[in-house]
Amino acid sequence: MSATLIDSIYAPIQEDLRLVEENLRAISKVDTFPFLSGLLDHVLDFGGKHIRPAITLLASRFHPCDRDRAVIMATAVEALHIATLVHDDTVDQAEVRRGRATVSNRWGREVAVLLGDYLFARSASLVCETSNIRAMSRFAETVMALSAGELREYVACYDWRQTREQYWLRIHDKTASLFAAATETGAILGDAPEQHIDALRSYGHNLGMAFQVMDDILDFEGTETVAGKPVGNDLTHGVMTLPAILLAERFPADETIKALFSDRQDPDKLREAMDKIRSSSIMREANEIAEGFCDKARRALDGFPDQAARRSLIDLTGYVTQRER
Amino acid sequence: MSATLIDSIYAPIQEDLRLVEENLRAISKVDTFPFLSGLLDHVLDFGGKHIRPAITLLASRFHPCDRDRAVIMATAVEALHIATLVHDDTVDQAEVRRGRATVSNRWGREVAVLLGDYLFARSASLVCETSNIRAMSRFAETVMALSAGELREYVACYDWRQTREQYWLRIHDKTASLFAAATETGAILGDAPEQHIDALRSYGHNLGMAFQVMDDILDFEGTETVAGKPVGNDLTHGVMTLPAILLAERFPADETIKALFSDRQDPDKLREAMDKIRSSSIMREANEIAEGFCDKARRALDGFPDQAARRSLIDLTGYVTQRER
Repeated sequence: MSATLIDSIYAPIQEDLRLVEENLRAISKVDTFPFLSGLLDHVLDFGGKHIRPAITLLASRFHPCDRDRAVIMATAVEALHIATLVHDDTVDQAEVRRGRATVSNRWGREVAVLLGDYLFARSASLVCETSNIRAMSRFAETVMALSAGELREYVACYDWRQTREQYWLRIHDKTASLFAAATETGAILGDAPEQHIDALRSYGHNLGMAFQVMDDILDFEGTETVAGKPVGNDLTHGVMTLPAILLAERFPADETIKALFSDRQDPDKLREAMDKIRSSSIMREANEIAEGFCDKARRALDGFPDQAARRSLIDLTGYVTQRER
Repeated sequence: MSATLIDSIYAPIQEDLRLVEENLRAISKVDTFPFLSGLLDHVLDFGGKHIRPAITLLASRFHPCDRDRAVIMATAVEALHIATLVHDDTVDQAEVRRGRATVSNRWGREVAVLLGDYLFARSASLVCETSNIRAMSRFAETVMALSAGELREYVACYDWRQTREQYWLRIHDKTASLFAAATETGAILGDAPEQHIDALRSYGHNLGMAFQVMDDILDFEGTETVAGKPVGNDLTHGVMTLPAILLAERFPADETIKALFSDRQDPDKLREAMDKIRSSSIMREANEIAEGFCDKARRALDGFPDQAARRSLIDLTGYVTQRER
């Protein structure tokens, strides 16, 4: 079902997305270094929904924009996303990503660090091909935000006293910053007026916030099959996400999470924390917060004409809060 | 003695280098994230000779070039160099760099990966401040070369059958590419004519090759005090550098290095390999090769007027082949 929905959302940019995939495959052709080519093939073939390049392409459709440059920018956005996945998996020591061994698992962390570096640089060189200084600058700042966000999450691990504000800052940096840059650069390449650039950046930011909040919600819901990873993964690794923060807000005297983070090996404590969060109305509140970000994303598009790209961006807000996305 | 020599070489750019150091200190001020500021303080205070930003500044002196932009570019070059050191130390699991604990040693490899990413991006954002698309493009390509070079070295570890050509490619990528980009971007920012850009890139490339060959020679010479790290470090970690490759070239039937790489724990085998390389005329040949790169670097400057910047670049070729640099 969700494949059909996403296909209809992507209909206006289907051909451009195909070109993005072609460009991504071209990245892995490094004639002088077959080993590097093999690594790139492995990570660039991760699959996925390509939501970030899709919003770059859609955001570029409201103003006259050279199509080739929009496709190149969208490719850079996806290549950057993949570079961050390679490093995140190294940092988290993840073994599997989308059903395939991670680079750090299969070739070692050393190789994963260097491959990620190469892909960061390759994505930046793609942005250079757009010859747009402002897009390049936004891109570099986004990589700073992404790494700072991951660092924020890493240093906050196992700290059970975290506020909503800290969480917003962290997920903005680690996730929403790239969504915001994706739409903003799409607008920039079309020389959109400043208020349209602002609006499309705001759309991307809020979509990214909703996306990450939903990701964090899904970690408390469903089964491993649906989420594609073990449920309770965040709490197990000491990461306080929105549902856990809402529990601490609502019951300041509750020490379930504190106890879990103190005794990390006790499966009963994880179950207790998960149960408390699930049985209260906390999950409903978290879902409402995700919907709130989607509302803001949609409202950011109020001033845009009712054309196919706008309808797709609006439908995407419904898509990211789906369970089966 | 060497401090005096380098001071006189840097005399024409003394004030600009001070501004580069000021800019580097400014990078570490991240008001919203004190932990990141602390990490940046730690690595940006590594000290060192700043040879890469120095050649950017010197290369910018042959044509009218906005001084602020040259200083920013030189800062970016040094920040990029430091980013690569942070990741290299993570990959090599090095414990100490210039007498201080490495980031991966003190804060863990996870933090080192993310800090390196941040610094890569910060250096790219500095290049964006020059508003020069060609400089940005060269910069991104250089990061690709640097990471590919480190990857080449990593995958070639403990392979005793390596050729000189493989070695040239590797040290070009991992070291000389940044020296070449340093001088080339200095020339680009001054809108130098193409043949001058080519010449300054060639100077940087050859200086970088000489620099790395000397580094590899020093690993076979002297004592730990002079080289700042244990002698025989490369062979211990399975890295075939020029002296070992020359041994294999000259005595194809010799199996000393093969035996060392097969039994990595045997200190006698390391001593045997080191002795063989030192007692032959191999070290002299390696030194002549380094001098050959310096000759090429100097010849690349033939068409430039005899001004202070040219004299400094020429004197630098003498400096990099010094033992006490």
